[in-house]
Amino acid sequence: MCDVCGCGDPTLVPVDVHERLLSGNERTAAHNLAHFRAHGMVSINLMGSPGSGKTALLEATARAVGSTRRLAAITGDLATERDAARLRAAGIPSTAITTGSACHLDAAMVHHALHEDGAHDAQFLFIENVGNLVCPAIYDLGQAVNVVALSITEGEDKPLKYPVMFRKADLVLLTKIDLLPALPDFDRIAVERALAHVMPEPRLIAVSARTGAGIDEWIQWIERLRALA
Amino acid sequence: MCDVCGCGDPTLVPVDVHERLLSGNERTAAHNLAHFRAHGMVSINLMGSPGSGKTALLEATARAVGSTRRLAAITGDLATERDAARLRAAGIPSTAITTGSACHLDAAMVHHALHEDGAHDAQFLFIENVGNLVCPAIYDLGQAVNVVALSITEGEDKPLKYPVMFRKADLVLLTKIDLLPALPDFDRIAVERALAHVMPEPRLIAVSARTGAGIDEWIQWIERLRALA
Repeated sequence: MCDVCGCGDPTLVPVDVHERLLSGNERTAAHNLAHFRAHGMVSINLMGSPGSGKTALLEATARAVGSTRRLAAITGDLATERDAARLRAAGIPSTAITTGSACHLDAAMVHHALHEDGAHDAQFLFIENVGNLVCPAIYDLGQAVNVVALSITEGEDKPLKYPVMFRKADLVLLTKIDLLPALPDFDRIAVERALAHVMPEPRLIAVSARTGAGIDEWIQWIERLRALA
Repeated sequence: MCDVCGCGDPTLVPVDVHERLLSGNERTAAHNLAHFRAHGMVSINLMGSPGSGKTALLEATARAVGSTRRLAAITGDLATERDAARLRAAGIPSTAITTGSACHLDAAMVHHALHEDGAHDAQFLFIENVGNLVCPAIYDLGQAVNVVALSITEGEDKPLKYPVMFRKADLVLLTKIDLLPALPDFDRIAVERALAHVMPEPRLIAVSARTGAGIDEWIQWIERLRALA
């Protein structure tokens, strides 16, 4: 386990530096969580590889809920505000966090964005993390749940190859299922078997942001979180 | 810029820790490079998102060169040896580096693998990095060139969103072009425009490991490296 990134080599960085970083992050994450709860906000940390369809999923979510729910988003990106711009165009008030060269969001970045944007009346806050199937899993942001987007083009073995991420997931969204006809060898059972190896409580919903398939089931899942909150 | 991972938050880790890590890595990378040169080996650091098709590309490369070239590979993965097993099955002697939770390879890992496997007569050594479009770019391994696999399913804007990686690339392989009929909106010109923004000398080869399209052009590219070495 490494330091800031949380995912490096234990021999390189002093243990005390690493522990100080993570414990500082946990304190801020607890503060964020208290903030989310006080405002009755369901906070969802959405992670996944670059191009796994995180932004497209949120666009489809906005289309599906229309004006029945107040959504907001915080988007993490190294260098652009493109995701936030796309989500604003879809009707989701969004704050962009530009991380520079940082490979993940941390609790302090989210805390700062919360104070900046003030979207405190949202019922659902989506935190779209930096596209990365390793590092974001290490950093608690204070979210209610972790959701991982895994596209069918990435291969069935990804949960086994990136177990740290999938071990932390409350839900996996199998995205881009509209591409199934072009991927005749895709084996959903193999994905489910891989998830069963690494997720404490495997849960998978197959979706297509393009066709809207599975989006209702996804919205029912987040609505249950709201009912439980 | 962070510490071990090289991609975190500058406020969190002491600058001296960060500098010590990167300068230590550079010394080992220089040692690796001397090793590669002494053995007349062309070393290629192959990076890209999870599921961008790095292993499939190397399988297709092995099929195309047959026995005319001696290939070898070092593969980085968090938790499995699946990529190395696939490459061995394709006829490429391969050493697996299992990184645990580390999000990238570093020069010391590669150095250790070099001593372990002893594939010193290879003409081309492919170092298949951990699937990650951020962190691996920070760590020099002693490679002759950096090659980034970007699949057409990931979206045209990835070079703009992950500039650190593409800035370091000597070549970008646009992979999975056999899926073009299923992605009617894919815009290759937009990818080229994005690469022109971030790559010092933009070079793009479109390939399909499945159909073999573009693989000859890729092999010509690596053969030129050998001629220059």
